[in-house]
Amino acid sequence: MNSIDNLIESMGKKALAASENLRAVTSQTKNQALLNIAKNIDNNRDIILQENNKDLSNGKKNGLDDALIDRLMLNNERIDSIIESLEQIIALPDPIGEITDLRYRPSGIQVGKMRVPIGVIAIIYESRPNVTIDATALCLKSGNAVILRGGSEAINSNIALYKCVEQGLVQAKLVKDTVQIVEITDRKVVSALANADKYIDTIIPRGGKALIETVVNNAKVTVIKHLHGVCHTYIDKFADTKKAIDIAFNGKARRYGVCNATETLLVHKAAANRILPDLIDKFLKKEVELRGCDKTIKFSQQIIKATEEDWSTEYLSAILSIKIVDSINDAISHIDKYGSNHTESIISDNYTRLREFMMKVDSSSVMINASTAFADGFEYGLGAEIGISTDKFHARGPVGLEGLTSQKYVVFGDGHIRD
Amino acid sequence: MNSIDNLIESMGKKALAASENLRAVTSQTKNQALLNIAKNIDNNRDIILQENNKDLSNGKKNGLDDALIDRLMLNNERIDSIIESLEQIIALPDPIGEITDLRYRPSGIQVGKMRVPIGVIAIIYESRPNVTIDATALCLKSGNAVILRGGSEAINSNIALYKCVEQGLVQAKLVKDTVQIVEITDRKVVSALANADKYIDTIIPRGGKALIETVVNNAKVTVIKHLHGVCHTYIDKFADTKKAIDIAFNGKARRYGVCNATETLLVHKAAANRILPDLIDKFLKKEVELRGCDKTIKFSQQIIKATEEDWSTEYLSAILSIKIVDSINDAISHIDKYGSNHTESIISDNYTRLREFMMKVDSSSVMINASTAFADGFEYGLGAEIGISTDKFHARGPVGLEGLTSQKYVVFGDGHIRD
Repeated sequence: MNSIDNLIESMGKKALAASENLRAVTSQTKNQALLNIAKNIDNNRDIILQENNKDLSNGKKNGLDDALIDRLMLNNERIDSIIESLEQIIALPDPIGEITDLRYRPSGIQVGKMRVPIGVIAIIYESRPNVTIDATALCLKSGNAVILRGGSEAINSNIALYKCVEQGLVQAKLVKDTVQIVEITDRKVVSALANADKYIDTIIPRGGKALIETVVNNAKVTVIKHLHGVCHTYIDKFADTKKAIDIAFNGKARRYGVCNATETLLVHKAAANRILPDLIDKFLKKEVELRGCDKTIKFSQQIIKATEEDWSTEYLSAILSIKIVDSINDAISHIDKYGSNHTESIISDNYTRLREFMMKVDSSSVMINASTAFADGFEYGLGAEIGISTDKFHARGPVGLEGLTSQKYVVFGDGHIRD
Repeated sequence: MNSIDNLIESMGKKALAASENLRAVTSQTKNQALLNIAKNIDNNRDIILQENNKDLSNGKKNGLDDALIDRLMLNNERIDSIIESLEQIIALPDPIGEITDLRYRPSGIQVGKMRVPIGVIAIIYESRPNVTIDATALCLKSGNAVILRGGSEAINSNIALYKCVEQGLVQAKLVKDTVQIVEITDRKVVSALANADKYIDTIIPRGGKALIETVVNNAKVTVIKHLHGVCHTYIDKFADTKKAIDIAFNGKARRYGVCNATETLLVHKAAANRILPDLIDKFLKKEVELRGCDKTIKFSQQIIKATEEDWSTEYLSAILSIKIVDSINDAISHIDKYGSNHTESIISDNYTRLREFMMKVDSSSVMINASTAFADGFEYGLGAEIGISTDKFHARGPVGLEGLTSQKYVVFGDGHIRD
């Protein structure tokens, strides 16, 4: 065992002990810790910005591009929004201990389900320092111990923010091992965490596809993840013209770099002439590059012919692929074949077809007459999200506090024995 | 790729296609298929018993022990109970399509969760032929395609039962690939199934620890399993004497070979003199072997001294380990250290201590003043169970129809776009 494995084992043991302690910590104490953290961040703005400056100048020296530098950068406004997100999580109801479906059984026992923490969670993230606090807040509020491993480019910012966390925990009389941060930036840390299944219950990679694939391919620990979001908007034969144009445009063009952006537009052949000309015009004016099937490219010379690869590509940029389909079943088959089980939307006024799409499409979110851009923890009312899962197990779709919990059965008897 | 991998890939593809078809199949059709299967079994008793006889005589030839032969054996009574379990599953409500938590959000969209099938499930089991039908019924009712892989010793019985399934599916106009059985008995099939993550969503091993470990160690596919059940009953300082004796005795001695049997009894030091003498007497009369800590062995010369290994052993037989603890916290620490997160019970009349035990014990079932023997899908009202999961993810505790499903988000808008 090398020194990194030793370090992770030692952190894992401490986290496990802290998680056992956390099971019965009251909401009041957890919220107090979060409030302390918010105050500590507010009081230490100068140090945090100073440490962030170190990361920024290192980043520039190492030739990070502007987008990465922007993600890395903190300022007073961004610190305000970190504090605000802490306040939002404090205001959320505590999921832990909730008992549901408590019912008497014929034997006389009462059986229900109690919501409980998962245990120990490792979060692996990239350049945004605010994840240090967001992840801490969501894990702590849901009663989990957490091991943080941020990107090496943000290490000074992350450690400065972590000091506010550590102090806030101690002020609330919680053990500081409740939240730990890996301070060494060696990449081997990622696979060491992914293999520490004796101590870590789940690992959540937040970042690009390469990071997520590294974690998944190495993981003995359960991973909550989504690999990519190839989201579809399907304009049905019976779509309202205005709703179709608004929703398809919003799904793609609201923001390009997000996983819930529409990447492929499917249009029923009977709706194409009615809807596509205006919609194509709108996209081209917005300088969205369009790649279409044989039928689609006839609508404009500016549309490039799509390749087979296009249908399964998550562009994350101002590019949209468009395919004209013969039927709703062809649309669903296309989604089954090329989609990523993230989010798909149908635009139609036909009740039967809406029901069919909703039952048959196997995605973490299925939408009716609404933009794929709504696939988001805040929009769904989760209060905050740690990511969007495209897996079918455990958490699916936006993962908020509840996705960081499990349920156990609780049984109440009064001397009951089984025949 | 060898021929077994090819076979499993081909079966996996067919199962995936069948599962896509199953998503929108009505409850009526699924129940009709189950009813057909029940009728076909009833009409083919002679053939089934004849094929079972082949397995029995092969088993005897191969020197299978009496317990295994008994598990393998079918007779008219056991066929009756297979048919009865089909009827019970037909009577259960269909979990698929249920939408819960549907709420309006400030944006005007409605967001809810819809219960959907997992997709394709592989079940690996050992000698009991009835699992062929139980697993079929639970998977089909929950909208999943299934690949069955029973024990080689029961292959003729399983194929005879499977023919009733195949015919029942076709009679209900469902594709027969909805349920498939692996007819070759090569052990490599197990790891081929566990690695077919392109087609199979989850694998459920039902059998001994060796089988489950083989699956887990090989699996790329998500596994629903429990490795073992080291269940504890804790008799608190404030336990009622009669309830404590009844519940502890029932937890251990009701049945020995089951995963919910109490394997270790923890007794608060202040309750030991009051409760242990009668309880020990009761166990010894029942010929339960007792293995105790230093304090426990003083209660009877017939109690053997427990070794360190005893505390983590699932006896599955007429053996019980007993430890006297200094406090409720010592009891909980013992469970954390040696338990298997299956089922633990506390006997106490003290409200504060019951609350503490319930919050702090991290098991799939936590019981208050009730026998661990109640940890069972039927007792919990699930209608049927495919196993008991000691994992924290997805299904935890007894796994019934709901444990074979997932949830997706559904969003209803009427032209809604995001700001």
